[in-house]
Amino acid sequence: MDVAALSPAVQALRRGELRVWSFVVTIFGDMARAPGQELSGAQLSALTEAAGIKPQALRTALHRLRKDGWIDSRRIGRGAFHFLTEHGRAQAEQAAARIYDFDAVAPEEWHLVVMPDRARVLPGHVPVAPGCFLGHGSAPDMTDALVLSGPDLCVPDWVRAQVMPDDLLHDYAEFERALRLVLGEPSPMSDLEATVQRLLAVHGWRRLVLRCPALPDLLYPDAWAGPGCRQLMADLLDRLGPATAPG
Amino acid sequence: MDVAALSPAVQALRRGELRVWSFVVTIFGDMARAPGQELSGAQLSALTEAAGIKPQALRTALHRLRKDGWIDSRRIGRGAFHFLTEHGRAQAEQAAARIYDFDAVAPEEWHLVVMPDRARVLPGHVPVAPGCFLGHGSAPDMTDALVLSGPDLCVPDWVRAQVMPDDLLHDYAEFERALRLVLGEPSPMSDLEATVQRLLAVHGWRRLVLRCPALPDLLYPDAWAGPGCRQLMADLLDRLGPATAPG
Repeated sequence: MDVAALSPAVQALRRGELRVWSFVVTIFGDMARAPGQELSGAQLSALTEAAGIKPQALRTALHRLRKDGWIDSRRIGRGAFHFLTEHGRAQAEQAAARIYDFDAVAPEEWHLVVMPDRARVLPGHVPVAPGCFLGHGSAPDMTDALVLSGPDLCVPDWVRAQVMPDDLLHDYAEFERALRLVLGEPSPMSDLEATVQRLLAVHGWRRLVLRCPALPDLLYPDAWAGPGCRQLMADLLDRLGPATAPG
Repeated sequence: MDVAALSPAVQALRRGELRVWSFVVTIFGDMARAPGQELSGAQLSALTEAAGIKPQALRTALHRLRKDGWIDSRRIGRGAFHFLTEHGRAQAEQAAARIYDFDAVAPEEWHLVVMPDRARVLPGHVPVAPGCFLGHGSAPDMTDALVLSGPDLCVPDWVRAQVMPDDLLHDYAEFERALRLVLGEPSPMSDLEATVQRLLAVHGWRRLVLRCPALPDLLYPDAWAGPGCRQLMADLLDRLGPATAPG
């Protein structure tokens, strides 16, 4: 299907470059993440074509994903079935925990860790000065670090700007606009259209959330469209329902 | 009076070099801190002589303190009266708040401040990393700083060592030994001996507390003799009573 022939909702959601291999990862993550689940070549063709992707681009993407160990395939007669490898499934599960979580994180307890070794990095924490890291939840048990835990945190703009660079802030705002446009359109008439809208929305959302750490809202800039996007994504997925494999 | 002729208690308390001008500041701070109070030259001579200080050393000290604006004097006939200047009184009041406070500080609330300018210094706080400061009590209201407040603090050894250098740690231990020795001696028989013991003890204590910041005990090394000294000082001053100006 030519891009110009796509519905306004689909066009809004696939604004910007759509990397086909990455979109196929989104499809597997949304529709065939459980062990034993698979998608036929014909199903993938129908879904990607409805999103304006050419057959050759799908073939190239599948080839690349197989080569990189994300998916595997089995042939039956003239058809083929594709499924996530163990590695691919692990990645998809990890991502899903963030992609489909539309609740804001508002911790009751924060901690600051100051380490004597200024070059050290503390995973899962926000660096706020050399050797100094901010986290939430229970504090790490480190005898060689100064650790203060407490409920009251003031976050200045320079920390927020560090957590969320301008280009990502801009991409969130663009995505929020696209979601509003889609929700302003009539509900899709066909299962295929609904599924493609869902997959493109999940894909756009996935590409945003995986570019920033999973942090409480308090650490993001006021201008960040994340909370709005979360609500609109929940509304849209609610309207569209679960993905339906074509044919 | 020759040093060798002094009582064991006074000898123990004046161990090490006794800077006469500094001891005279201690005398004024302990005996004549209030506006209008003064000490005669004869009284100062009697007190310092009983501490083993030569008359010429007292004259030099008084000259220096006058020149530096700590004290002023008025002559009456052949005698003189000395008193703290406004400047000297302000310094003495500030020091007294720490010298005569024998209560441990155990705050219920701590805060860590992280400033974007790593070269900035936050007065009244302990530097724990470049631009990062630890404090207790209510947190400063700084919009450009990350500030976390809370009750739970873990302090590692490297912070404690930084707060209390080895030589100061050693001097506290020496002073505790001297106080134990003095309290092991019989109570002084005369008012003058009691007053001199008191002044020397306050002087030794003053020289320790003014060399380290006023911090909660949790920030000092375990080996720090501060809590022991505090208790012994309170016991000794209780035994000796207030200073009495000689005849």
